[in-house]
Amino acid sequence: MNNPPTIILISPQMGENIGAAARVMLNFGVTELRLVAPRDGWPNQKAIETARNAVQVIENTKVFPTLAEAAFDISRIYATTARPRDMVKTVYTPRKCAEAILQTTEKSAIVFGAEQSGLSNEDIVLADAIVTIPVAPIYTSLNLAQAVSILCYEWFTAGDTTPPENLDTGKYGLASKIELTSMFEHLEQELDKSGFFKVLDKRPNMVRNIRNIFVRAGLTEQDVRTIRGLIKSLTKTK
Amino acid sequence: MNNPPTIILISPQMGENIGAAARVMLNFGVTELRLVAPRDGWPNQKAIETARNAVQVIENTKVFPTLAEAAFDISRIYATTARPRDMVKTVYTPRKCAEAILQTTEKSAIVFGAEQSGLSNEDIVLADAIVTIPVAPIYTSLNLAQAVSILCYEWFTAGDTTPPENLDTGKYGLASKIELTSMFEHLEQELDKSGFFKVLDKRPNMVRNIRNIFVRAGLTEQDVRTIRGLIKSLTKTK
Repeated sequence: MNNPPTIILISPQMGENIGAAARVMLNFGVTELRLVAPRDGWPNQKAIETARNAVQVIENTKVFPTLAEAAFDISRIYATTARPRDMVKTVYTPRKCAEAILQTTEKSAIVFGAEQSGLSNEDIVLADAIVTIPVAPIYTSLNLAQAVSILCYEWFTAGDTTPPENLDTGKYGLASKIELTSMFEHLEQELDKSGFFKVLDKRPNMVRNIRNIFVRAGLTEQDVRTIRGLIKSLTKTK
Repeated sequence: MNNPPTIILISPQMGENIGAAARVMLNFGVTELRLVAPRDGWPNQKAIETARNAVQVIENTKVFPTLAEAAFDISRIYATTARPRDMVKTVYTPRKCAEAILQTTEKSAIVFGAEQSGLSNEDIVLADAIVTIPVAPIYTSLNLAQAVSILCYEWFTAGDTTPPENLDTGKYGLASKIELTSMFEHLEQELDKSGFFKVLDKRPNMVRNIRNIFVRAGLTEQDVRTIRGLIKSLTKTK
């Protein structure tokens, strides 16, 4: 996966948030962090502690006096903001922003404002698009590192090829249908012997329901052996 | 948006992580948090502080001794884990999990393990599916609250109808094409007068390029008035 976005934090206040942002950036393969005028200076011990094993991101972080300087080599700026501004700008969802970044070979940056105040209009005007994270009206104030996380996660998943759904069968393969049928017949013979099917008219429907339970369970070869052993054990006691 | 998942944290260690999880849950409209055997007991002052304005989620949090008891009214359990287990289970991406939750009217829970150790196989066996958050191989250890955030974000966006891209034009509408053309003609007349087009053969191509700059900018009616004023001002000085 190439060309991850640069993350630029404007006037971040809490070292913990800078460190947590660095950590989650690296979780999603985003490695370049730049700061504009961090409140408590730089380096910041709290940021180092919170970054945990992503301390390499913190060590490579550069500090700049303004966004224009921090974005010296950036061709596309995406500004995260929740509030609509009285400004003509395209507004992207995080997912759309991730696609836009992935589709270009130019260097992109995602910019985040300070914890309390967010981005200034002077910073937003430099942005090619605004990105707004959809949130519930009941509580719209996202933690800074959580906002960084959502954008980095979307960027990473936009280029990720993991299938949405996948059956992990461990070390055994799924049972073949012949193995299943043989197990069903074994079970049904024993149920016949034990007098389970009291009303013979209902037998076909009950057999279908019982077979369906095991089909839905997606048994492996090992599971079939286990169930067969279980049937043998239960019938032996009589 | 109805039927949000219940979030269940098994043996969480840090109050800060519980509070941060509660905060980001409420950001994405997820309100029901349950804990199984939190290390430092309950209530937890650090959790209350970190939850900020989501303290209502913390106040309604119930504590249980086991996952089976915490999930007493839950029909579908999704277990978040990074490691493959030697177990036959369907593995979902967070996005697929969100869709599955949204498509059912049954009560679902997403379960998260302790910070260091994750979920035990005993807990995972109760789950209908495993959810694995895709991460970069360079640093796979996600903070607990960040993991909660990704799942809640995916659930919220699965039901969110925000268009991926939207032009915010502020209080002015976009300029009509006749206003644009009139502005172009004004500009080109002034450029002709000033001798800007030194080689007449190149004029059509240069006009096209200049018009294209302004078309790409997506001007509002107010922008057109501003540019016209700007041309007038620049030409007045000669």
